[in-house]
Amino acid sequence: MHFNLQHSDNKTKARAGEFHTDHGVVQTPIFMPVGTAGTVKGVHTKELETEVNADIILGNTYHLYLKPGLEVIEGAGGLHKFNGWNKPILTDSGGYQVYSLSGVRKIVEEGVRFQSHHDGSYHFFTPESAIDVQRTIGADIIMAFDECTPYPCDYKYAKRSMHMTHRWLKRCMDQMAKTEPKYGFDQALFPIVQGSVYKDLRLESAEKIASFDAIGNAIGGLSVGEPAEELYAITDHVCSVLPTEKPRYLMGVGTPANILECIALGVDMFDCVMPSRNARHGMLFTSEGIINIKNKKWEKDFSVLDPNGTASVDHFYSKAYLRHLIKSKENLGIQIATIHNLAFYLALVKEARTQILAGTFSEWKDKMVVKVQNRL
Amino acid sequence: MHFNLQHSDNKTKARAGEFHTDHGVVQTPIFMPVGTAGTVKGVHTKELETEVNADIILGNTYHLYLKPGLEVIEGAGGLHKFNGWNKPILTDSGGYQVYSLSGVRKIVEEGVRFQSHHDGSYHFFTPESAIDVQRTIGADIIMAFDECTPYPCDYKYAKRSMHMTHRWLKRCMDQMAKTEPKYGFDQALFPIVQGSVYKDLRLESAEKIASFDAIGNAIGGLSVGEPAEELYAITDHVCSVLPTEKPRYLMGVGTPANILECIALGVDMFDCVMPSRNARHGMLFTSEGIINIKNKKWEKDFSVLDPNGTASVDHFYSKAYLRHLIKSKENLGIQIATIHNLAFYLALVKEARTQILAGTFSEWKDKMVVKVQNRL
Repeated sequence: MHFNLQHSDNKTKARAGEFHTDHGVVQTPIFMPVGTAGTVKGVHTKELETEVNADIILGNTYHLYLKPGLEVIEGAGGLHKFNGWNKPILTDSGGYQVYSLSGVRKIVEEGVRFQSHHDGSYHFFTPESAIDVQRTIGADIIMAFDECTPYPCDYKYAKRSMHMTHRWLKRCMDQMAKTEPKYGFDQALFPIVQGSVYKDLRLESAEKIASFDAIGNAIGGLSVGEPAEELYAITDHVCSVLPTEKPRYLMGVGTPANILECIALGVDMFDCVMPSRNARHGMLFTSEGIINIKNKKWEKDFSVLDPNGTASVDHFYSKAYLRHLIKSKENLGIQIATIHNLAFYLALVKEARTQILAGTFSEWKDKMVVKVQNRL
Repeated sequence: MHFNLQHSDNKTKARAGEFHTDHGVVQTPIFMPVGTAGTVKGVHTKELETEVNADIILGNTYHLYLKPGLEVIEGAGGLHKFNGWNKPILTDSGGYQVYSLSGVRKIVEEGVRFQSHHDGSYHFFTPESAIDVQRTIGADIIMAFDECTPYPCDYKYAKRSMHMTHRWLKRCMDQMAKTEPKYGFDQALFPIVQGSVYKDLRLESAEKIASFDAIGNAIGGLSVGEPAEELYAITDHVCSVLPTEKPRYLMGVGTPANILECIALGVDMFDCVMPSRNARHGMLFTSEGIINIKNKKWEKDFSVLDPNGTASVDHFYSKAYLRHLIKSKENLGIQIATIHNLAFYLALVKEARTQILAGTFSEWKDKMVVKVQNRL
């Protein structure tokens, strides 16, 4: 697995690259739809390719470990075989969801004890087991087991947690070295920079993470409630330390404007539940701005969903019809809105790449950041 | 609009025909998926054509009248334009759902007063307004406004109700004659035979309905809880009275076995929520029998969903994956199961037609009735 940096923008720190995996090449910058339980909610596997134009999707280790469980996924021959997605898959380490979803949980040096949100059963994740689980799920990109600190987070806690994350990273790396891929394709580990909103901690963490010389690096602990200015400042700061020739993955970010700004700061990979989650509430992201389809103003708007959209649903269904479906709590409404939003996110990063390669990214980005935040 | 009877089976009363509408030809016997609120739940309009192979779908007048309401549907240019379905649409009259769904309701000679299940608002349907509403929705086939009696129903009530249904039919016919289609295509009214499970009432009703010389005729008030033997006996009895040269629509029926048996009795058209509703609970109908995908036995069955299936989902997804989705309450599971079940129903009636035309229906039907009721 390797990354080719193809072009760096002159006016910003934006980059265009290619990440090569055994499941194909991912052109960056890229957005990765979130497929929590082995499915991007409401979207057929084929539609992810033909409608959304996704090149890589996420799976959530915590969810998949609990349901359907590792025996089933291994029996299928890994997640790709299980859900029929033949392009790359990235899995988170399970850490973030253990902290946010599970009931009783206890973080100790050895790992994290937690209770399933399904049945209350007890489980224990360690850096080693998080690697083993991701090996079994069959991710192309495996994420290090870290602690994602909340916002706000006091300095002392952030520092202590970061150091534990670094120690855990060493254990993850060792476990990766000791184990083999299970399904014949290569798997790479991405370490994660932590340090909350503290610049000195972020510097220390980024240097530490860079020293492991991994195939790619991630920035965690952001998009947890901090103001956009802090998100941008920390991202900028960390990107300035992380190696240029490795892909940079900013975890859990964000709005279309967040993504454009962070591409300008040198980020290559993004994931976020926002396009799919907000779709379920009738919020559409478009190149002209944000549509709340539940608003009365769309009730008799029979124009197509998004004349600039790249998905066929954008041109097949009208705003009024989608409004009716969402207001009537019909699943088809969620399906249409999810496909639209994900396709928009993918089209946005694809266009960003085109603009980077053409040397016109900076001007385009400044215009788009205003447009995508517009309320229609 | 007209019906061509193409072939009548020698050993049974099964028929093959073609129903011509301004939105295309429907080959019979046919099953019509139910699209309650202007959408077959969880199925894209395009998938209804490409995956389900539907030729005609239903809309529910009660639901569409309340949401999105007639102004929106008329603004769109009718339901076909609103949801993008260009083949025929049949609407029920709203009567059945007024009785089963709404809160306070009062049936009087003039019509039915009822409360919306959404907001408790009061509404009044009459035979005349039911026709007007269906004209506005833009159904190709409009159903008469009737009272669907429950099961069991005492003789006196069934008789009185049936006579009111007959008087209402006259008013429906008059209203049809007085009004014009709104969107440039032809609309036909189907009257409905009632009379509960009483043979003399059914005879009287069938003769009365036949006397109106409508383009097609329907049998209502069945599949409301009566034993299958009564369903078959009444259907057989009514079919023997209804004119041969007109299509016969048996409302709300049924299981795959019910449909095959009723085809053998001379029914041409069916609708039922069963394939879509049961899909939402993980019950799959297949040519080899019924699968409850939630059962543990499918947990590690990685074979394709249905090797005999006609939909692409049947060959793309495994039983184990669908089980995981349904158990995890993922919408994609419902989407897959719904497409599978509807495609199976459509394939079943298509095969019935092929067998009728080939003169082999009787033997095939007897074998299939056993197979489709098998529990896998």
